[in-house]
Amino acid sequence: MQKVKIGIVGLGRLGRKHAENIAFRTPKAELTAICSILKEEVDEVKKNWGIPHGYTSYEEMLKNKELDAIFIASPSGEHCHQIAEALEAGYHVFSEKPLGVSLSECKSAETAVEKHQDKVFMLGFMRRYDPSYAYAKRKIEEGAIGKPILFRGYSIDPESAIEGAIKFAPHSGGQFLDMAIHDIDLARWFLNSEAKSVYAIGGCYAHHEFGLYQDGDNVSALMQFENGTMAFFLAGRTAPHGYHIETEIIGTKGTLRIGSIPQKNMVEILDQYGVRKECSQNFLERFEQAYVDELQEFVECILNNRKPEVTVYDGTKSTIIAYAATESFKENRLVLL
Amino acid sequence: MQKVKIGIVGLGRLGRKHAENIAFRTPKAELTAICSILKEEVDEVKKNWGIPHGYTSYEEMLKNKELDAIFIASPSGEHCHQIAEALEAGYHVFSEKPLGVSLSECKSAETAVEKHQDKVFMLGFMRRYDPSYAYAKRKIEEGAIGKPILFRGYSIDPESAIEGAIKFAPHSGGQFLDMAIHDIDLARWFLNSEAKSVYAIGGCYAHHEFGLYQDGDNVSALMQFENGTMAFFLAGRTAPHGYHIETEIIGTKGTLRIGSIPQKNMVEILDQYGVRKECSQNFLERFEQAYVDELQEFVECILNNRKPEVTVYDGTKSTIIAYAATESFKENRLVLL
Amino acid sequence: MQKVKIGIVGLGRLGRKHAENIAFRTPKAELTAICSILKEEVDEVKKNWGIPHGYTSYEEMLKNKELDAIFIASPSGEHCHQIAEALEAGYHVFSEKPLGVSLSECKSAETAVEKHQDKVFMLGFMRRYDPSYAYAKRKIEEGAIGKPILFRGYSIDPESAIEGAIKFAPHSGGQFLDMAIHDIDLARWFLNSEAKSVYAIGGCYAHHEFGLYQDGDNVSALMQFENGTMAFFLAGRTAPHGYHIETEIIGTKGTLRIGSIPQKNMVEILDQYGVRKECSQNFLERFEQAYVDELQEFVECILNNRKPEVTVYDGTKSTIIAYAATESFKENRLVLL
Amino acid sequence: MQKVKIGIVGLGRLGRKHAENIAFRTPKAELTAICSILKEEVDEVKKNWGIPHGYTSYEEMLKNKELDAIFIASPSGEHCHQIAEALEAGYHVFSEKPLGVSLSECKSAETAVEKHQDKVFMLGFMRRYDPSYAYAKRKIEEGAIGKPILFRGYSIDPESAIEGAIKFAPHSGGQFLDMAIHDIDLARWFLNSEAKSVYAIGGCYAHHEFGLYQDGDNVSALMQFENGTMAFFLAGRTAPHGYHIETEIIGTKGTLRIGSIPQKNMVEILDQYGVRKECSQNFLERFEQAYVDELQEFVECILNNRKPEVTVYDGTKSTIIAYAATESFKENRLVLL
Repeated sequence: MQKVKIGIVGLGRLGRKHAENIAFRTPKAELTAICSILKEEVDEVKKNWGIPHGYTSYEEMLKNKELDAIFIASPSGEHCHQIAEALEAGYHVFSEKPLGVSLSECKSAETAVEKHQDKVFMLGFMRRYDPSYAYAKRKIEEGAIGKPILFRGYSIDPESAIEGAIKFAPHSGGQFLDMAIHDIDLARWFLNSEAKSVYAIGGCYAHHEFGLYQDGDNVSALMQFENGTMAFFLAGRTAPHGYHIETEIIGTKGTLRIGSIPQKNMVEILDQYGVRKECSQNFLERFEQAYVDELQEFVECILNNRKPEVTVYDGTKSTIIAYAATESFKENRLVLL
Repeated sequence: MQKVKIGIVGLGRLGRKHAENIAFRTPKAELTAICSILKEEVDEVKKNWGIPHGYTSYEEMLKNKELDAIFIASPSGEHCHQIAEALEAGYHVFSEKPLGVSLSECKSAETAVEKHQDKVFMLGFMRRYDPSYAYAKRKIEEGAIGKPILFRGYSIDPESAIEGAIKFAPHSGGQFLDMAIHDIDLARWFLNSEAKSVYAIGGCYAHHEFGLYQDGDNVSALMQFENGTMAFFLAGRTAPHGYHIETEIIGTKGTLRIGSIPQKNMVEILDQYGVRKECSQNFLERFEQAYVDELQEFVECILNNRKPEVTVYDGTKSTIIAYAATESFKENRLVLL
Repeated sequence: MQKVKIGIVGLGRLGRKHAENIAFRTPKAELTAICSILKEEVDEVKKNWGIPHGYTSYEEMLKNKELDAIFIASPSGEHCHQIAEALEAGYHVFSEKPLGVSLSECKSAETAVEKHQDKVFMLGFMRRYDPSYAYAKRKIEEGAIGKPILFRGYSIDPESAIEGAIKFAPHSGGQFLDMAIHDIDLARWFLNSEAKSVYAIGGCYAHHEFGLYQDGDNVSALMQFENGTMAFFLAGRTAPHGYHIETEIIGTKGTLRIGSIPQKNMVEILDQYGVRKECSQNFLERFEQAYVDELQEFVECILNNRKPEVTVYDGTKSTIIAYAATESFKENRLVLL
Repeated sequence: MQKVKIGIVGLGRLGRKHAENIAFRTPKAELTAICSILKEEVDEVKKNWGIPHGYTSYEEMLKNKELDAIFIASPSGEHCHQIAEALEAGYHVFSEKPLGVSLSECKSAETAVEKHQDKVFMLGFMRRYDPSYAYAKRKIEEGAIGKPILFRGYSIDPESAIEGAIKFAPHSGGQFLDMAIHDIDLARWFLNSEAKSVYAIGGCYAHHEFGLYQDGDNVSALMQFENGTMAFFLAGRTAPHGYHIETEIIGTKGTLRIGSIPQKNMVEILDQYGVRKECSQNFLERFEQAYVDELQEFVECILNNRKPEVTVYDGTKSTIIAYAATESFKENRLVLL
């Protein structure tokens, strides 16, 4: 079996999950190299998992000609230059979202991708590969709900993770860039159009700390898209029940809801609290399969010489919209795109 | 508007509810007389509700020729003789379930009803008048589930009511007669047949007290009906979440479930316990509308000179089956009817 | 039993339902007079229901000193002047929503109510009396969800009623005034604040006819309230599954959802279409009990000399917000209140 | 990474799925050999998947000393002797359920396993490895539902698969052995006890063909277990909505339901049929992850020199109970174990 040899940069919480998926859950992929600025991390993973190559320097890893592809799971600010360098060095590239933390960065990534058309570039909008989202997309394309009218996307982190969220707040870019970006991509995907106007509001309802960075702990936005469809977004940090990712697409002939109850599994409990379902507690639990499936798609694209559905432009466009929402929120005004 | 003048006997918890429904929720009925052996009860209701006549003697009430109908909500052991006396005295009669506490009693009630064919007699199997059960029955008759295969009926009282249940245990006749009798009637109604074999088991899983009366706190029975269909019953006393009345009818073309979540209302809660619905806590809450609707049917039958769907024979037959289940449970053997 | 004698004006679809509730479902009320410009309608109801007085002139009915209260179920344009006339004539008044079709009308109604402080005036925001909404309100007041963050209200009429909706479109005032007004009242009630900014969008996704009146078949609005909370509204006409009234209140400690599945009853069906619940098909089905309960509250207020929770100002304020949303929608701009 | 080299016998529908899981979804396993009496099948898989060794003779495969373990996915009648032969030849063994088609066969398998205590033997009761069932088991062990009272297990194949079911009927052993065996194992697992009495009924409600083999298209059984707990089973072939595997464990302090709606994914549809969820259509769809997870457990047991929770005795005991139910069904009598 032909295998794609992958080097990953970034071994944080999500990075390590990606590394595991490459090493242990994708038969056609091989985790050939790992890279992190933390030497102990590199040594530990290299040794315990039996990975051939370990690096603390990204540049060094890019010199390893054994590799076929680079998987970027580093901090957001590193994505765009690492994408360009990896493509330049002749590798296929997968980058975690967001594409970049500024528009100029995104544009430079676009240029790099355009220059290396022979390489596969894929962006980690993994929700598109979640079995339920993929099923909903097929349903819509088959006409099951007629013409889309409104997209509603909730992304609410659990209150239990609030400490980390507050710590990360100065660098997150705000809820629209950090939390709502997946929903923005989904809205573009399901509605098949781009946003043309946005009004965003929100506030600090439980945690004043977000206000220090002109952010809120819960924010929302209403957008009209170029084809006339509507989209409503809610991004927050205070769900008591778990990691709440809920999506609804209302159409002229029907409505689809994905994850309207963010249930952990198929167990229902009847006890003194009523009849209830327990919920997923974080993105790794909710999107476990989606992370595997997007990786598989990346590998198959490389092996079969085709391009993934998610392009570099999806990254730029979603980022532009997230910026517009942030601007609207900060200045309390309608922003036209 | 022509009104049916009703005298009620029994002003206990359920009796008082019926009295309220007659007095305040059924425009074509009038609560003209009340009867209870507790004089204070009679005086209080008479005065506060403005009821014309109050009695502590059932015989006295039966002499009140102003009345059109008698509503029997007295203890189970009184039902049959009070039915016969009221019919004999020339009244239409509504009796709470069970029809009687022995077969010979039931038979004597049958005789009384047969003798007074010009009178309306109705038995309080109120579930048949619950909007959801009535809807399910119509669906089945329309062929929505094809041919019925299996009926499943759960009747589980909340643990919060266990004290009363234990106190009442010596006189209840056991779970099959006291709790499962409604499900037995429903099974006969939905399956359109009579039971021909029954195997019943159970035990004291949480409250040994029921064992003193050869009863269990949770019991179940499997029955085959004459037309080959199956029925499974569970009756219990230990639901932590509320009053759990759940019914399922599986057919060759579809399945109907009524109340599979015994939800209190249309509110769903997302909090630290997950995503949950609170439950009805007792029969008055769950079947509030059914009690009104059965009363309305009784009144309409009188006014329009027609007979209700539930007959005296439904009472006898359900009782026979409940006895057979009790016998099977006590002797741990298959009982053929 | 003391009874409130009521005269109703308007015997259309909803008017007739109210008349029935007064006549047959509220023991402490009496339907003493009916009024409609259609003589046949008056004659028919008078005769069949045995109503003492029938009128084709509202002014004539107001001269009937037997009456205690006037129930206004006439077309929206008549509400305000009929309210003022009835109060002036010395009656308690119940008016269907909307309070009026212009702000000046609403203000004149306010003046009339203020002038007759000794009379009960109640506005038909019946959702507040629906058992599930009332339960949610209690829960919120008890602190069950912490501090409210966002209100989401959907009011979507079934596609099956589209013909009537299109016919009525020229006179409806648009979706925000006609459909969303209940949600606006609910948002004010649950969030305990008034809207301060609104952005509204929408379009004709299935039925271009609404565009003739600068309206859409589906519209939405995002509002920020004075206390910082958020509200999102969707009003539409094209639900294939039924009458979709769904409400969500997200708080810092929990979320409540009312009617997220607009289920008809407690029956669940498993058949070739999957596992499904059928839905309520119109407002009379969904809010049957709420209409009875609001009437009961009106009657109790009169009998006990107290004022209902819904005031004339709720009517004015909700109308102001609905107008602002309409303006925002028509002019595609942010409107500040 | 150390890998377990596996040879599989049987490449039918389920066999091929297992082969895929070994080859492509379990990094620590390697599909080293395949065996089937159909040469074309062997050749095709060998070539397309790049498998080193292909056999049409089981005996020949057992001579391949490169192998560590044998995976048995052949017809039920072959299981027991193949288990013994593989153990004898020195391999670890995984066998699909049922253990055997007669008690004497099961006993001989027990003997073989006992003789080779140093080898890992595992039986394919994969439901125990399904994430939801495993979660429920943990919950019960943690005391979440108090003391178990009743187990309810439904296993209903979709009507869409009826043709194959009828064709297979002469060899299936009947619904209790073929369909209910998984539920019987689950009941033993969750209730932590063995059945002591069983009454079984059923019939041909839609497909008379099953009657030719003294079987029904839908059958049910009620059992009491040695520790006093109860279990109710329904096995059938006529679900219109999909592959219906539903399990409930009612306890003194709470109830757990697993898969009460056999939903395909997290998508909910609102359309002309109401609010609905589509269902899984077959066991491969429903238990996809369970098949992977049980294989992983088998491999980990081998690598870590420990024994799986499912033992050969689970196979025998479940088979004994299934036989007793079959006997009760055929003879319409209570069977004591």
